[in-house]
Amino acid sequence: MVATTKFDFEEYVASKRMLVDAHLAEYLATGSPELLWESMRYSVLSPGKRIRALLCLASAQAVKEDAHLVAIPTACAIEMIHAMSLIHDDLPALDNDDIRRGKPTNHKVFGEANALLAGDALLMLAMETIANHTPASIDRSIVLKVISELARATGASGMVGGQVDDIAFTGGKIPANKLDVLHSIHMRKTGSLTAFSTWAGSALAGSSAEQQNHFHHFGEILGLAFQITDDLLDVTGNIETLGKTPGKDAEANKLTWVSIEGIDKSKAKLVDLKHEGQETLAKTGIEKQSLVALESLLQLAIERAN
Amino acid sequence: MVATTKFDFEEYVASKRMLVDAHLAEYLATGSPELLWESMRYSVLSPGKRIRALLCLASAQAVKEDAHLVAIPTACAIEMIHAMSLIHDDLPALDNDDIRRGKPTNHKVFGEANALLAGDALLMLAMETIANHTPASIDRSIVLKVISELARATGASGMVGGQVDDIAFTGGKIPANKLDVLHSIHMRKTGSLTAFSTWAGSALAGSSAEQQNHFHHFGEILGLAFQITDDLLDVTGNIETLGKTPGKDAEANKLTWVSIEGIDKSKAKLVDLKHEGQETLAKTGIEKQSLVALESLLQLAIERAN
Repeated sequence: MVATTKFDFEEYVASKRMLVDAHLAEYLATGSPELLWESMRYSVLSPGKRIRALLCLASAQAVKEDAHLVAIPTACAIEMIHAMSLIHDDLPALDNDDIRRGKPTNHKVFGEANALLAGDALLMLAMETIANHTPASIDRSIVLKVISELARATGASGMVGGQVDDIAFTGGKIPANKLDVLHSIHMRKTGSLTAFSTWAGSALAGSSAEQQNHFHHFGEILGLAFQITDDLLDVTGNIETLGKTPGKDAEANKLTWVSIEGIDKSKAKLVDLKHEGQETLAKTGIEKQSLVALESLLQLAIERAN
Repeated sequence: MVATTKFDFEEYVASKRMLVDAHLAEYLATGSPELLWESMRYSVLSPGKRIRALLCLASAQAVKEDAHLVAIPTACAIEMIHAMSLIHDDLPALDNDDIRRGKPTNHKVFGEANALLAGDALLMLAMETIANHTPASIDRSIVLKVISELARATGASGMVGGQVDDIAFTGGKIPANKLDVLHSIHMRKTGSLTAFSTWAGSALAGSSAEQQNHFHHFGEILGLAFQITDDLLDVTGNIETLGKTPGKDAEANKLTWVSIEGIDKSKAKLVDLKHEGQETLAKTGIEKQSLVALESLLQLAIERAN
């Protein structure tokens, strides 16, 4: 972004989404068995917000102009992992959802066996994409670290572990320290991947170890804010109309931020997280105009209507 | 192994299995959520042949005495991937098996949701194990290559893709070129992981590019032989009693080597593969006494009673 012109966030998001979508289409273009690749493409190339990929690219670019280009394979890998998590979560053994973003879920189109295997294949393709497509200019030890951190953020200590606890605490088994438990679930189910996104983008761009910590923490904050917003949207349907009929999640006995803290305290928490996110970015020592995309993404995570 | 003493294969297998089991127990020792790690341990630490891990260690040691020590994390990662493939294959959406090696399958003990997520977590733990535990003496670009090749061997182009085609061609949809199709399925479902095992062991031990090709091919041959032996065992129950009652696989319309080629030609194919395997090993230029463990493993793959 050019320092002297006003930052156009909508234009920024549109252009970066196009970049990510074009590379995802390339990484998923060919392959046999055809049925398997078709089902992988069905979920990955379905239009999405691409927030995690944008976080990765924006973090790279905040550290160094044009560094987002070396982060593209990693940004795409994150979207593959995210798509995979939706495929497996939608399966009958988990959430048993038939519709995702207005389209039939993967297993409804390709069958349960293929959907399960497509998820497995996407986990592996994500790793291959980072290993094989990250430019040779990036030190191999950094690429290895990126892969290892993505595996950690995705696996038992991260997203998958959060999902296991989410299942364990749904349906009435309410623990005594319920806000701590929910915080931990949100941090792993959502926060671990958003924190990886911002950390990896900055690391690939050559940030210092201290900066990397701040980027990681910013991603955690954003992930938690994203998830609390989700909990609010589940109640209100629209964040602008908060305070209307409390919703169906409470009936289902699902642990959510709103069910524990109520709407007002949840909204107050989002305001706190926004400030904490801004302060964390400031600590990187990067000039403010280079951080505007990340600040806008935090805003988007909190203020999106859906 | 010491050149002047007779090679004791049983002792070799027992000691290497113990080494692999001890490291697997270490890599899977701790973790939260407890339920998830318990289900991961249930499948990975269940007693097994560990043939893939032994192939990796024996290949490393064939290239360089004591090099199997640097290959331990990779050998363990292969066993995690193998265990994961059994967990997902046993799920109701795929083979719907209740019993595996005389014990209830993972989802029978931990539920379908946990079993599915334990498989996902094991895929990630395999990658982390290689990235974080391979000794620093190994060049990071080789470690990265090992991870990328394992992801390829496991994913859509390898094991997972073979599984998708196996499902597609089971139940009567017999293609015209059925032996080619079955060869391709066996090569991907079984051969891609055994080929990775021998290739990776040799690569981590510092073999030349040409040697790596021979090790890879040897692993493919062994994997195919292993799978044809499986097809024979499905018919006879015991390879020593071949020629008795032809079996249940034919009834289930499953594409197997025996159903296409018959018992005699399948046995002859195993003899051919054994010779091809021995010739391939000889091409590495490694002295014969250092290859005896690999030759014995080929023998074991073919002559095992189960």
